Amino acid sequence: MEKLTLIKVGGKIVEEEASLRRLLHDFAGIEGFKVLVHGGGRSATQLASQLGVETKMVNGRRITDMEMLKIVTMVYGGLVNKNIVAGLQALEVNALGLTGADMNLICSDKRPVKEIDYGYAGDVKKVNAACLLSLLRQHIVPVLAPLTHDKQGHLLNTNADTIAAETAKALAPYFDVTLVFCFEKRGVLKDENNDDSVIPELTGELFKQYVQESIIQGGMVPKLENSFEAIRSGVKEVIITHASEINKNSGTRIK
Amino acid sequence: MEKLTLIKVGGKIVEEEASLRRLLHDFAGIEGFKVLVHGGGRSATQLASQLGVETKMVNGRRITDMEMLKIVTMVYGGLVNKNIVAGLQALEVNALGLTGADMNLICSDKRPVKEIDYGYAGDVKKVNAACLLSLLRQHIVPVLAPLTHDKQGHLLNTNADTIAAETAKALAPYFDVTLVFCFEKRGVLKDENNDDSVIPELTGELFKQYVQESIIQGGMVPKLENSFEAIRSGVKEVIITHASEINKNSGTRIK
Repeated sequence: MEKLTLIKVGGKIVEEEASLRRLLHDFAGIEGFKVLVHGGGRSATQLASQLGVETKMVNGRRITDMEMLKIVTMVYGGLVNKNIVAGLQALEVNALGLTGADMNLICSDKRPVKEIDYGYAGDVKKVNAACLLSLLRQHIVPVLAPLTHDKQGHLLNTNADTIAAETAKALAPYFDVTLVFCFEKRGVLKDENNDDSVIPELTGELFKQYVQESIIQGGMVPKLENSFEAIRSGVKEVIITHASEINKNSGTRIK
Repeated sequence: MEKLTLIKVGGKIVEEEASLRRLLHDFAGIEGFKVLVHGGGRSATQLASQLGVETKMVNGRRITDMEMLKIVTMVYGGLVNKNIVAGLQALEVNALGLTGADMNLICSDKRPVKEIDYGYAGDVKKVNAACLLSLLRQHIVPVLAPLTHDKQGHLLNTNADTIAAETAKALAPYFDVTLVFCFEKRGVLKDENNDDSVIPELTGELFKQYVQESIIQGGMVPKLENSFEAIRSGVKEVIITHASEINKNSGTRIK
């Protein structure tokens, strides 16, 4: 099967001019089929603050009321997405910026209200693989913003890691998919105070052991659980690495 | 040749929930190939004001400094565009929201500085007709935001009427194109105080005469000049009508 690389980058990288330029340059250098998924939370929080809208996060997830939905639609779907697209076009990458609403690419359910009402937050229901496949075959490079829709006319704020993992899984029957999560560290660290203690490869066994020993903890646990789930669903490889090293053979590999 | 309808709607229509719903419903009812081009200037001005950024207009054109470029990228490329796309998807129209940067659809030159520095404003250089044609043949309905790019990594704020006219002209070799400019009036009026005085059809001769007699004046003159230019470039028909009447046989027709 042909190779496809799906890169997920967080807000910090794409919101700063210098790191964005470097990322786009490295991304342009990736051979074969590729997809970019981006965040933008910091800019959304900043714009919200400028507009006097309070940002509320629960378990690392943004509470998205109507005002916040407008803000993330502007920041993720407009500012961040279109700057990436223009930047890639200048590097001769035929980028196309997309939300899940465009071409009905990713359909979500509004998250059910249990203890917490996350508002206009979407849980991914279906990624339209046929549509992505068609774009990729036309040598178009999809750039996905973390927004989906419910097919009832509503946009929904959707976690970018989830979009990346679900898209990778949807494309796994057609490509050898490598899913790369960019991170502020050089990979999963054995000692969080030592940037050189990157764990080169993680198996399910090792992961369980490290969690029990509290070597891996916090937000890295769900990220890795998602990664193992992606592997079980047919994704060939998941890599957790620093954004400046997406083209190098570094980081933590999960197979 | 097959028929294609290109509708251009201004900010006022797409920024108010009720008029947007109606427009999308009417647009969904148009048969055959279609394209929607939208504005969003009022929302941009409103957001600018909330952010303490002054809106400067010269000859009806927005001065677009770096701060204003961010604002129009958020409003046109994100908020307005993606809400239209989600609304159309709910009506089973396979909409795809695009700026000129996406798939290198519309390339512009930054407007040269003469008496006035318009900043990051784009003058359309080339519309990628092959790309639009390919999307249309896949039964995708392009929704164009008034943003283009210079292929050097910069987005440029671009007049929506111009994007509509240039896109109509670029598609004219492939389709019988009807270009519809939506307007707050029911068409070009012979008496501006009488909404029923719509001029049903305008020829070049009649237009000149009405301009000489000051029956047609102000912003309508360049709009009509653009319309006649589109006709000379192969567009089959231009219609100027009210947004609520895009599916009716009304308004002012230019052939």
